[in-house]
Order: sequence, then structure tokens, then C-alpha cells
Amino acid sequence: MKLSPLQISRYQYNPKLPGMLRHGVSEICVKEGEATQSVADQEKIKSLFPNTYGKKEITFQKGHNNASSKKQIVGVILSGGQAPGGHNVVSGLYDALKSANKENELIGFLGGPSGLIEDKYIVFTDEYIDQYRNTGGFDIIGSGRTKLETQEQFKIAEQVCKSHNINAIVIIGGDDSNTNAAVLAEYFAANNSNIQVIGCPKTIDGDLKNEDIECSFGFDTATKTYSELIGNIERDANSAKKYWHFIKVMGRSASHVALECALETQPNICLISEEVAEKKMSLSEIADYIADSVNERANRGMNFGVAIIPEGVVEFVPEFKKLIQEINELLAGSKANEFNELPTWNDKYQFIEKGLSEQSFKVFEALPQLVQQQLFLERDPHGNVQVSLIESEKLFSALVKDKLMERKAKGLYKGKFSVLHHFFGYEGRCAFPSNFDADYCYSLGYNAFMLIQYGYNGYLSKVSNLSKPAEEWVAGGMPITKMMNIERRHGEDKPVIRKALVDLNGKPFKYFEEHRQIWAVETSFTFPGAIQYYGPSEVCDLTTRTLALEKGE
Amino acid sequence: MKLSPLQISRYQYNPKLPGMLRHGVSEICVKEGEATQSVADQEKIKSLFPNTYGKKEITFQKGHNNASSKKQIVGVILSGGQAPGGHNVVSGLYDALKSANKENELIGFLGGPSGLIEDKYIVFTDEYIDQYRNTGGFDIIGSGRTKLETQEQFKIAEQVCKSHNINAIVIIGGDDSNTNAAVLAEYFAANNSNIQVIGCPKTIDGDLKNEDIECSFGFDTATKTYSELIGNIERDANSAKKYWHFIKVMGRSASHVALECALETQPNICLISEEVAEKKMSLSEIADYIADSVNERANRGMNFGVAIIPEGVVEFVPEFKKLIQEINELLAGSKANEFNELPTWNDKYQFIEKGLSEQSFKVFEALPQLVQQQLFLERDPHGNVQVSLIESEKLFSALVKDKLMERKAKGLYKGKFSVLHHFFGYEGRCAFPSNFDADYCYSLGYNAFMLIQYGYNGYLSKVSNLSKPAEEWVAGGMPITKMMNIERRHGEDKPVIRKALVDLNGKPFKYFEEHRQIWAVETSFTFPGAIQYYGPSEVCDLTTRTLALEKGE
Repeated sequence: MKLSPLQISRYQYNPKLPGMLRHGVSEICVKEGEATQSVADQEKIKSLFPNTYGKKEITFQKGHNNASSKKQIVGVILSGGQAPGGHNVVSGLYDALKSANKENELIGFLGGPSGLIEDKYIVFTDEYIDQYRNTGGFDIIGSGRTKLETQEQFKIAEQVCKSHNINAIVIIGGDDSNTNAAVLAEYFAANNSNIQVIGCPKTIDGDLKNEDIECSFGFDTATKTYSELIGNIERDANSAKKYWHFIKVMGRSASHVALECALETQPNICLISEEVAEKKMSLSEIADYIADSVNERANRGMNFGVAIIPEGVVEFVPEFKKLIQEINELLAGSKANEFNELPTWNDKYQFIEKGLSEQSFKVFEALPQLVQQQLFLERDPHGNVQVSLIESEKLFSALVKDKLMERKAKGLYKGKFSVLHHFFGYEGRCAFPSNFDADYCYSLGYNAFMLIQYGYNGYLSKVSNLSKPAEEWVAGGMPITKMMNIERRHGEDKPVIRKALVDLNGKPFKYFEEHRQIWAVETSFTFPGAIQYYGPSEVCDLTTRTLALEKGE
Repeated sequence: MKLSPLQISRYQYNPKLPGMLRHGVSEICVKEGEATQSVADQEKIKSLFPNTYGKKEITFQKGHNNASSKKQIVGVILSGGQAPGGHNVVSGLYDALKSANKENELIGFLGGPSGLIEDKYIVFTDEYIDQYRNTGGFDIIGSGRTKLETQEQFKIAEQVCKSHNINAIVIIGGDDSNTNAAVLAEYFAANNSNIQVIGCPKTIDGDLKNEDIECSFGFDTATKTYSELIGNIERDANSAKKYWHFIKVMGRSASHVALECALETQPNICLISEEVAEKKMSLSEIADYIADSVNERANRGMNFGVAIIPEGVVEFVPEFKKLIQEINELLAGSKANEFNELPTWNDKYQFIEKGLSEQSFKVFEALPQLVQQQLFLERDPHGNVQVSLIESEKLFSALVKDKLMERKAKGLYKGKFSVLHHFFGYEGRCAFPSNFDADYCYSLGYNAFMLIQYGYNGYLSKVSNLSKPAEEWVAGGMPITKMMNIERRHGEDKPVIRKALVDLNGKPFKYFEEHRQIWAVETSFTFPGAIQYYGPSEVCDLTTRTLALEKGE
């Protein structure tokens, strides 16, 4: 493999640890805080986690390390979608573990949680780890989406761990993976397995966030990468002055990514799914909202602009959600065959018209044909509509175009509307981690080992005070059960970590709300440029606007 | 407008000049070289450019500046698509001009060549220029695609220049714009207008290149931006191990962008349009070529990969070109209405079957329906197929899928083939220029002023030896007529700068050819990461692999 100059250079980067972890493993001691309670449904959560519930929050500080120096064998798993910095969690964990005791071992399970079940693994060495320091991707051991959630899986996991003499597992994942980490921790505790489980908060979506976890790793780098591209496109739009760019960004359930990109780049329009749901907006209302900006900018002589569309927004539109439900029912079971055998799109269209409620058909009718066909022609193995395949950037530009044509007919709009479409997602998940993510992730991994050494189980590695320089960061751990509540999932009550949606009363959204009317009609574009790893600290080490605003900065 | 930390920081960057231009305008003298001849059709070109043909090549060197120090008023125009570094050409020009004489003035014509004809302009000031130093985009004065080519336009241009006392025009553009610059220069010379014209070689496509012009500006930054994204996607592919990514990159007529990105990132597949044309490849042959890689990788357990598709490749496939021709004829004039009135796609399909030759219908039949419909439903104002709207990345993935299904039926292929599609173009045209482009463009602009001061007309600003550090670059000028030949355009013989296609015997393609068999079946991905502006020189100041290979490095 040929290495790029940047990759060679990034190998040399020394990630910054929180001040309190800088004196070496032997100089780190524990300060215990208060016993914790889950954020809701305390009794239920307590009964489900009798052995791991109610533990104390802890922080580390400088002092004599009085933990046992017994040999530790630790397993690590990457779970779910890639996020920049995963390799640094592993290298931080490895470095702490080796500096505590050269005999310690780190085992990486391959291809995600299934690697643990199938006992596919590698044993890390200096040479191997050094190839992955400060690089993007999860290719160090691969990742996967298998969920560890059944008693059967737990039993196998225990056997595999025992066979390797593993005394702790670190699970690097999102809200679901960390929920499962807590359940596994409880299982091990209940069975007196003497195996600890530590979680690390990962996701570019930014929706694993709460009063304890200031942000999940990867969000910083991914949003900076998307913002680089959006800023470049804004500059192009402002130079060519003839296109509207509709840009879809990743974020199925929460709009943190879209919001952060908007704060970084100040586009004319950014939809926020949570607001669409809160205001129960219809497709037509959203299209009118965008068309108002296009119209007013045209009046001012600017037939160009940029609109950011979060990937999952259509699922937050109540009438669209209902349409999807009706389509799923309309094509359930054998009815799908009947539909598929209709020879032409016209025949199919009539079948649809007959099958949908009047209200849903109205919604359907107004969709561009491309999206109508996507709804019916591409369905998942259960026959359901694949909402993630809907090109919502094209859907909205088509709806906006219809609105503008109506206005033009009435003499209300005289502009031109040429649109280009983009989708940014895969471009950002495996970028070289920003200095922030490189530092944060390395610290999370290093810290995870400290939690292991001190014998904690069912904890999330926690590094906070993140809007400050790394020196001032605070390292510690939080029982995962503290973040849990009971939610209805697939018809069952389940203890889960609450997913953090965009808070419409939070400071990041409020800032956006205060400014967006101006952004919509003026050209207030900001051009962040590419992520920088060297050079002035104000260019290289800043984290997100979201975090800065949340911290009141 | 809110400025990003990078933008503020880039304002401070001092672009590097060639060593010979570093001693101040008063210490630059001219060394004249040989008289030049056009690359072909010498007699014809000479007769068309009696006043500007055959002039000498010149280089600058350190020495006493003996040019007249009369007040200079210079106009500048940005022409055509955006390319990173345009702002630096303007600021280099401005700085040289002001350092020669504070009374000198730089006038920017707005919105491209039409600004000159319509006399829309601004006069540059320090304060204004300083907002654009080392930034991307052409928003400093805007750009446009109007062509300056008629005698009528030249006459107006002359009047406008006279009204401002402009004694020189700098045209920043691609091959067509520089061809037109030469024609305008000849017009001014023939009329004794005392107005000089100097061109600067711009285009991200990299196809304005010849023995004199080592590369056009913007190519470096644009390909680095695309390579960043392709590398990130490769890393994602190698982490998730479940997707093939088909990535279309800009480049309508030449595949320099695709080739450079391939050299930077080592993907499994990269199509080169020039090779497709040379080998007269059919769509089916191309699909088989890609399918071979997918198949062999699947055999090795790797159901993932990355393929780069140059935007214009389908136009280089002989059978596809013929199909387009036939479709254009099939729908010419009133026949389009007849076609449009057919009620269903089936009816239209039958019309097409009847209208095409057997061979072309065979090609048509094998296309995915999406592309079939794109060919017929979206046509330009003249009724022609809009080839640029064809989603060739989707076309090829669909054809490859068909090939794989055939192989599967025969038991020859057992893999999975899930594809994601991307198109990178607008993301790179307005990025902050790389150090290379920032330096090169500033030098081109600075140098353009030197050519003006020494009274040259119809020259291209030339900076060469670009694969070496800037200190060793060579600055000078070349008569544009030297790069010209006669080509048939729209049924007429025209003197034009020869467009540089990828040379299949050149070193960059040869390097690619030598390695691609391995890249196709192994995973040799390289991850360039984001463009860096600070830090080690080997990370920040390198130009493209194409240039390095061409220069034998």
C-alpha cells in the first residue's frame, strides 16, 4: 500500500490528553462522585439492572494509582457505521494498557460484534497499531451491525472471553450499541463472570448526547468535511450566480449534522426535521417556505442559493409518514404481486389511486414522478417502502419548482430556477480525524483503560469540558444506566439510551432561528475550507459551533 | 459576512513567486528567445494573425527594468467555469501593477467577458483585493460564458477600453477564451489601438496544456479536493466491506481529472475516455472490464470497491455516439411533438424501436430504463439529447450488474454487488487554492503585469518548471499563436489552441496502465486527506502526480 504524505505525517501526531491523564497511568487516581439514577423510569431500570444500577459517577485526577496491577487482557469491538477517530480510541486504549503493564494484551474482534460471537480476532502489536494512528476509517478491525442483545449471544460472548482470559470488553458504538453494552455488563455481573464492559460514544449523527456526554466522536470531523464541501459549493454558487444547490446531508433521525453545517456555512435554507415534526409541516408548507427564499432572492437579482436538507426529513412530515404507512399496507402480502403484474405505470397509478385514502392520494399526486416511482418500485425484503432511498433533495426541488411556476403564472415571481443536487454522507465518515476528534478519541480510549483498571463495569468512558483546550478536559466515567429510560420498540418496553434529537429550545437551534431570515434572503455564506491539522490553533483545534453554543461560548 | 478561521488565516499567506521575480518590479528584465511558429498549419495561422504571429518567446530574469514607467490602466476578465486560484491571479496582477507605480489602476469587468461589452466594472482598491487573497471562487468580479469572438464585439471592447484609457486587458480563461484573446490581440494590433491582450491559462479540467504550459491553474486544487473525497470513500468501502462506489468526476472532453484522482487514490477501476475512444470500446466491453474486477474481488472475499468514471466517457463510446446522433435525428423538428404525444412509455418505446437502426436499438435496449428515459425526456432547446445530464455512473453500475447476473446464472460469480453513486465537480471548483495554486496563480498574475509593462501583446503568461520548488520556477511569456492549429468547428476552419487530451503514450497514463491490474483485484487504496496549507512542505506544497510523472519525477 502506498501512503499519502498526509498519512505519513499524521502518524507523528501526538494526541492531546486531558491534563489529569498526562502524568502516566501510575499517577492517576479515582475520585468518586454521587450515586446515579436513570434519567427516567428509575424503578423499572433498576429492576432490569439490579447489579449495575445506581453506581457512582467518577472522575480521574492526579494521584497515586492504587488499582491492582494484575495482567489485563482486553477485547475491543467497533460497532455500526464508521466515524472518524475510531482508530484513535483503539490506540489510546492500547497505549494506556501497555504503559500499565507490558504483559497486558489488547484483542480486536473483527467485523463488529459478530467477531466476538464468531471468535474472529487479532492481537494488537505496536507495529500494527502504528499503521492506524490518527487515521480515519474502521478498517483496523472492521465494523458491523450485528446486535448483541440475546441471552444466547451473551453466553457465547462469555465463553469466548473466558477462552482468551479476557477480563474486559470495550464497545465503541452509538446509542443502541451502548444500550446493549449495558445489558451485557449486567449479564456478566449477574453471572459473576468477572468481565467488565466499557462503552465509548461514537456517531457522526451527533444523537448520542446528553447531560453527561457532550458529544459523540466523529461528529466534529464529519460535519467539518461536509461544511468544507458546502462552503465550496456556496462559493461556486456566488461566483456563477445561476444555480440553486439542494444538498442532502446524512442524519436519518436527528438533524444535528444539518444544523451544525448550517451554523458553519450560513446557507440560505436549512430544514430541521425536529422543527418540521413539531410544527406538523406539510410538504406544501415546506416547499412554500423554500420558495419564499428563492422568490425574494430573485427579486433582489440573485437567482442562486444553497439549501441543506437532512436525509430523514420526509419521515418527519406527518402527511408523508401516513402515505408511507398506507403504501406499506396497500402492498402487503400478495397484493404486491397483483401490483407488480400491472403492465404500465398508468395502470399502477390507477391501482394506487383506488388504494390510498383521499388525503394520502393528494399528497402522492403532488410528488414528482421520480419520487412516486421510487416509493413503489424499490421496496425492502419485507415489502416496505425504503424511505432512505427517497431522494429528498430532488423531491423538494421539484416541489419548489411547482410552487414557483404557480407564482410565475400569477405574476408574483420572475426569476430563474436551475437546480443542482448533492448528497454528502460517505465522504465524511472516514476522513482523517480532526485534531479535536484525534485528541478526544485517544482520550476516550486511554480513559476506558483507566476505568477497566479500576474495575468499573457498565460504564461509559466520559471526557467532558470539550469546548475548552484539551489540558482542561475532565476524564471519568458514568454508569450507562444513568442515561436510560424505557421506550416502546417493536411493541415491547425496552430500556434504552434516549436518542438526542435537536432541542428546539437549545442554543444552537435558537442561534440558527435568530439568523435564518437574514440568511434566506441575503448572501451570508461562510467558507470553512478543508480541515487543517497544522497551523494556528484557532484554525486547527476548534470543535463544532454546536458544542460552543451549547456551552454558552 | 462571517469569516471562517481558515479564511482569516489565509489572508496572511504570502504566495511564493519564482526566484527571478522576487527582487521587485524594478529588478526584472527581459531575455528574448527564438521567434515562434504555430504547432501546425503555420501558413494559415500566420495569414490570420499577420500582426501577432511569429513573435519571440521571452523569459524574465533579474536585471535592470528598462520598460517605460508610464501610467498603466489594466482591465481584467474572468472567463468560464470557476477554478481555484483566480483571485490570486488578480491579486498578483494588482500587486505588481501597484508596485510599479502607485498611480496604476486595475479595473475588473463584472460577470465575465460580457462585463467588457456592457461596460460593467469595478476599480480595485487595496481594501477590496485584501478580502479575496488566497481564497477560492470567482466572486471577486464574477465570471461568465459569453464568448468574445465577433468583430462587432471587438469594436465595442475597443471603445470601452478607450473610454477608460485602458492599455491592456488580461483574460483569465481556458483554451477557447485564450484563443479568443489571441484574436482580440490581433484585432487591436491591426487597428493600432495600443491595447495589449495577455492570457492566463485556467481550467480545472487540465486540458489547456502543451509543451509550453505545464498545467492550467485550478487543476491541482480541484483534483486534490476530489481525491480527498475519493480517498475517504475508499476508506469507508474498506471499513464497511459491503459497497461498490461508482464515482463520476468532472471532465467532459478530457480525462485528466479522473486520471490524476486515480494516481492519487489507487482505486480498483478508473475509466479513461481517451482509451475508450482509441480502443473503440463498446458499452458491453466496458461493463465486462469492470465486472471482471468485481468478480475477481468477490472471489477473494471482497465485495466492495471503488470505480472512477469521467463525466464525458459515454461520448467517447463509438456506438453510443451513434445512438445519440440517431436519436437527435429521430426527434428533429416536428417529430418531437409526435413522440411527446404518445401517451405511455411503452408507446414511446415502440416508436424508438421503429426509428433507430438495428445496431443502435440494440445499444438502446441494453441501457437501464433510467438512462433510456433520460435520453428521450430531457432535451436541450434544439431538441438534442443532453449528454451531460446522463448519469453515467448509474449507467455503468446497471450494466455491470447485468453482466454479473449473467455470470451468476452460469455459476461463474457468487458475490454480492451493492452500489452507491457519487458525482464530484462543484465541490472542487471553488475550494481555497492549494499552496501550489495560490503561488502559481499569484505568479501568473504578477508575470502578466510584467508582460504588459514590457509591451507584449497576444502572449500567454507562462510560469514553468512547476514540479520544482517555487524558487526555481521560470517566468516568461509565449505568443498564444504558437499553440494554435486549424480545427473544424461548426463546419468552419478555425484557428484554435489545441485541446490537450490524455496522451495514452504519456507517462501518467503509462504509470496507471502498469499498475491498474493490481489495483483492480487487490486493495491498494491511498488516502490523500484534506488539502493542507500549513505544516510540512511535503504535505503542503506538492503539486499533482500528473505533473511529477510528466516531468519524470
